[in-house]
Amino acid sequence: MKQQSGCLDIVLLHHPVTNKSGETIGSAVTNLDLHDIARAARTYGVNNYYVATPYEDQHELINEIVDHWLNGYGARYNPARKEALSLIRTAESLDAVIEDIGARTGMSPLVVTTSAKKQKNEVRYEDLKHHIENNLSPVLLLFGTAHGIAAEIMENADATLPPICGNSTYNHLSVRSAVSIILDRLLGM
Amino acid sequence: MKQQSGCLDIVLLHHPVTNKSGETIGSAVTNLDLHDIARAARTYGVNNYYVATPYEDQHELINEIVDHWLNGYGARYNPARKEALSLIRTAESLDAVIEDIGARTGMSPLVVTTSAKKQKNEVRYEDLKHHIENNLSPVLLLFGTAHGIAAEIMENADATLPPICGNSTYNHLSVRSAVSIILDRLLGM
Repeated sequence: MKQQSGCLDIVLLHHPVTNKSGETIGSAVTNLDLHDIARAARTYGVNNYYVATPYEDQHELINEIVDHWLNGYGARYNPARKEALSLIRTAESLDAVIEDIGARTGMSPLVVTTSAKKQKNEVRYEDLKHHIENNLSPVLLLFGTAHGIAAEIMENADATLPPICGNSTYNHLSVRSAVSIILDRLLGM
Repeated sequence: MKQQSGCLDIVLLHHPVTNKSGETIGSAVTNLDLHDIARAARTYGVNNYYVATPYEDQHELINEIVDHWLNGYGARYNPARKEALSLIRTAESLDAVIEDIGARTGMSPLVVTTSAKKQKNEVRYEDLKHHIENNLSPVLLLFGTAHGIAAEIMENADATLPPICGNSTYNHLSVRSAVSIILDRLLGM
């Protein structure tokens, strides 16, 4: 059982998530979710940015995009972008991500979900910040696409961060904004 | 001279901004800058989200996108998105934005820029937060596209917010992430 300094990983789930009608679906990977979230992850010193989807063709798409910025023309054109996108790891599922972190660190991560709606198993931002700063265990932060992470995942997580409230009741941030704000709250100066 | 409660406006500048080589250019409006930033602005109770560009065809593009979500099929499909995009105002230039705020409020806004690099005329986040909370004057926050706001605008602004530092020296956030984080720092709970 070994600890390491960079103890925060994030995962963007494309399955199982819900659609507008609350049904469980698999969503499509988008180019900008890869770029914007990788840039935020790199800014805040996140270890790995997992992109989870069970679909083989979506893995191919991710790998093609990442390859352009890591090895293709993009790497020469914009080395800063290369640095960000090098954090991206494809995964088939949340279980595969947890297994990968276990293999890397020898520990099970604390699995913390995020949601635009209030959940029962809430952890305060300051408490999770303390957990990360003191490296109490690896932490895996989950972000959902489409209309959010499916109930089965939410219920089995160790904890959920409170929804981001501005000074309004509007709770329809993009996942790219939500990741950025949450990383700043947990890891920002 | 009249004050009003919602005293923060934001503007996304597409001209004058710099390119990779430091030359002054006009950049292209992107669909996702409209959506993500409008959603963040609505979440944090921003008054108006100005999109500034001198190019007439870019105004047409913005109006076409906004019209789809305010009056077209988008308005019925996603009323929450309508609510966000209703904050968008097109403007020809920063001067036109300042003029519009003056006409609306009877006051000149405090013009505060943002940058990924440290500037001389820095204002602390907590001081600007205090200014906004106490409604000392309207505040206009500037965000740049491409490689950032041109020097002539930076130098004439009243103040600049410090760059967003994560726990790294990497300073290549997307403007969508930067807006989200800065609004959360200034207006988040």
